[in-house]
Amino acid sequence: MSAPTLLAAVRDGTPLVHCVTNLVATNFSANALLALGASPAMVEDQAEAAELAAVAGALVVNTGTMTPERAEGMRAAASAARDAGTPWLLDPVGVGPLTWRTDVARRLLELGPTVVRGNASEILALAGREGRGRGVDATVAVDDAADAADELARRCEGVVAVSGPVDRITDGTRVVHVHGGHPLMGRVTAMGCALGALTGAFLAAARGTGDDPVAATVAAHAVVGACGAAAGVAARGPGSFVPAWLDALAALDARGATAADTLIDPA
Amino acid sequence: MSAPTLLAAVRDGTPLVHCVTNLVATNFSANALLALGASPAMVEDQAEAAELAAVAGALVVNTGTMTPERAEGMRAAASAARDAGTPWLLDPVGVGPLTWRTDVARRLLELGPTVVRGNASEILALAGREGRGRGVDATVAVDDAADAADELARRCEGVVAVSGPVDRITDGTRVVHVHGGHPLMGRVTAMGCALGALTGAFLAAARGTGDDPVAATVAAHAVVGACGAAAGVAARGPGSFVPAWLDALAALDARGATAADTLIDPA
Amino acid sequence: MSAPTLLAAVRDGTPLVHCVTNLVATNFSANALLALGASPAMVEDQAEAAELAAVAGALVVNTGTMTPERAEGMRAAASAARDAGTPWLLDPVGVGPLTWRTDVARRLLELGPTVVRGNASEILALAGREGRGRGVDATVAVDDAADAADELARRCEGVVAVSGPVDRITDGTRVVHVHGGHPLMGRVTAMGCALGALTGAFLAAARGTGDDPVAATVAAHAVVGACGAAAGVAARGPGSFVPAWLDALAALDARGATAADTLIDPA
Repeated sequence: MSAPTLLAAVRDGTPLVHCVTNLVATNFSANALLALGASPAMVEDQAEAAELAAVAGALVVNTGTMTPERAEGMRAAASAARDAGTPWLLDPVGVGPLTWRTDVARRLLELGPTVVRGNASEILALAGREGRGRGVDATVAVDDAADAADELARRCEGVVAVSGPVDRITDGTRVVHVHGGHPLMGRVTAMGCALGALTGAFLAAARGTGDDPVAATVAAHAVVGACGAAAGVAARGPGSFVPAWLDALAALDARGATAADTLIDPA
Repeated sequence: MSAPTLLAAVRDGTPLVHCVTNLVATNFSANALLALGASPAMVEDQAEAAELAAVAGALVVNTGTMTPERAEGMRAAASAARDAGTPWLLDPVGVGPLTWRTDVARRLLELGPTVVRGNASEILALAGREGRGRGVDATVAVDDAADAADELARRCEGVVAVSGPVDRITDGTRVVHVHGGHPLMGRVTAMGCALGALTGAFLAAARGTGDDPVAATVAAHAVVGACGAAAGVAARGPGSFVPAWLDALAALDARGATAADTLIDPA
Repeated sequence: MSAPTLLAAVRDGTPLVHCVTNLVATNFSANALLALGASPAMVEDQAEAAELAAVAGALVVNTGTMTPERAEGMRAAASAARDAGTPWLLDPVGVGPLTWRTDVARRLLELGPTVVRGNASEILALAGREGRGRGVDATVAVDDAADAADELARRCEGVVAVSGPVDRITDGTRVVHVHGGHPLMGRVTAMGCALGALTGAFLAAARGTGDDPVAATVAAHAVVGACGAAAGVAARGPGSFVPAWLDALAALDARGATAADTLIDPA
C-alpha cells in the first residue's frame, strides 16, 4: 500500500490536475486539490480543455450540471488526454435517471478512462444495467454494483471505484476495499466529486512513483476517508465539516498517510 | 403551525428538490438542502431539466446569473413541473434593474408558480410596479411591497413571500408574518436563494402531510430564521456564519422546530 | 495612504461592484464583497452585463473558466464601463499557457482597464513576454515581472498590480509595495480573484473620496493582506482560513485599516 509515498509525490510535484467538472463542485474540488498539495485548473471551454489536458498531470471529467457546451469540453479534454497518454478519470454524476447525460457518459467511456468513480447506482447505469438511483443519491448498496463494476473495469481496461460506506475498487481482477470515512460525508454536496478530483492528483503522482492506477485510486480513497474520519470528530455538523476536512487534508503528514493505509483491505 | 410536522416529513422522505439556480447559489443551496435532510439535484440543461422536474418532489427556479440557455432550462423545467402537478417556486433574483431577466421572470410567472419568493424590490418589479432596488439588494421595505405581493398572489393563485427583517407571506387573502433571523444573513451571499431552495423541500414534504403551500412556505421561513438566529450567536462574522447555519439546520430537532413555530405571527 | 478613508467610504456607500468572473470565484468573491461592506452583482450575460456595467460603481472582469459566451459578456461589460466612465479591473486568470483566453485578455486590454491585477506569470504573458507559468500558479517571482508591469501600466495608462509575497503596484512611474498576507492565502482557491473583486470596491469608493486608482488598489491590497495575516493566525488550515478571512474583513475597523496602512511601502 502506498498512501505515504503517493502523498509525498503529490506534495513534491504539485501536479496540475485539470478538471472539467460541475457547477456545484468547482470551488470545493479546487480547494481540496490545493489543500492536498496539488494544483487545480478548472477549464471547460472546448479549445482550452484540449490544450490543457495535453499538458496536465491528470484530467478529471465530471458529468454533473451538464450543458451541451460542457459536454463538448469533456470530449475534447478526454480525447486530448488519451492522445497524450495522460491519465484521466470519469465521474458519471447523475448518470442513470437522466437520459442525455447517460448517453454522454457512455460515449466518454469509449475514450478509455483510466479510472471510473461513482456511487453504486451510477456505476450500474453506466454499465448498462438498470439503475435504481434518483440521481446523485447513494441509494443502492456498493455490493449490488460489484458485478457491474468488474465488468466495466474489464471493458475499459481500467479501474472502477464504487463509493459507499466501504469503497470497492477493482481493475476487473483484483478487488480492494477501503474503510473509513464518516456519515457527515454524505451530508455535504460534492464530496464524491472532490474524491474524484483528489484521485486525479494521485493518478498524476503515480506517473512518477511507478504505482499503478489501482494503487493511486486506493490511496486517494484511503486519504479521503482518513481525513473524513478526522473531520467528523472535529465538526459540529455538515457546515463545519467542510473546513475541518480541508484542514485535515492540508495537515495530513506521513504518519497520517501511514494510518490511512490501515483503512485499505486488499481482500 | 406546522414546522415540526413538515421538518419530520422532509427528514423521513428526503424529497428530491430540483434547482435551476444561479452560479453563486449552486453549492450553498445544495448544502442547505442536504443539511436540512432533503436531496438536491442541480440540473439546468433544457432536456434534462424537463426530464427531472417531472419526477422531482419540487422545483426551484432562480433567475440570478441568467444566460439564454439557463432561461430555456427554467422554462422547460417549469412547464414540466406544471404538467406533472409538481409544486414549484420562482425566486426572481435581480429582477427590476435588469431588463431581460425581468421579461424572463414575467414569462415564468405565466406558468403558475406555487410560490414566488423575493425581496421587496424584486416583488415590486415582478408585479410591474416601479422597483427602486439596484439588483439583489434589499433596499425597499417589506411593507412597501405588501399591495404588490397581495395582487401578485391573487394573479398567480399562489403564495408570495417577501423576505426582510420580518418576512411577509400571503396567498392574496391570508397574511402571515415570520420573525427571527439575524443581521448577518444579509452579509452572506445567496442566503435568500438558500431560503428558496429550502422552501422547495417543504413544498415537497407538504404533498404528503396535507399542508397547503402557505403552511410550507411559512415553515421554511421559520426554520431558516430560527437557524439564522442560532448561527448568529455562534458566529464571529459572516464567514463563520455559513458553516454555523448549516450545522444548525442539520441539528434542528422537533424541539427546535417547535421553537421556530413561535416566530410565526399569523396576524 | 488611505485605507481607513477608503474603507469608510465603502461602508458608507455600499458600492455596487459588478463582476463577470469565473465559476470557482463567484460565490467567494460575492461573500468577500459583502463582508467588506460592498454590494456584489455577479452578472455575465452579454445584454445584462452591458446594462449593469453602466450603472455599477465598478466592474471586475476575470478570465478564469472562460466560455465564448462569457467572453462576450466581458467585452460588453468592459465597453459599457468605458463609455460610462466606470472604473474597471481586468484579472487575467490563466493567461499565458491557454492560447484563446490570452487573445481574449489582450483584446480586453484595448478597452483600457483602470487596473490590471494578476500574478507575475499572468502579467508577463499579458504584456506579451514569455510566461513560464502553468496557469493559475504563482511560479514566477513578482520582481521578474516588474518591467513588464511598468510597461503594461504605461501602455494602458492604468495601474498594474502584481500579487505575490510582497505585492507590487505601479502606474508605470510610481511603484508601491504592499507587505502582509499569509502563506495559507496560496492554499485557498480564488483568493486572487477575491482581491480583484475587493479592489473593485475600493475603486468605486475612490470616486467619492478623490483618491486615485493607485491609492485604491494599494488600499485594497493592504486590507486583504492585513485580514489574511489575522486569519492565518486564527485558522487551523486552508479550510478554516476562508471563514476566518471573511470574518476579519467584516470586523475590520478604522484601527485595523490604519494598521493595514503600515503594510504599505511607497518606495
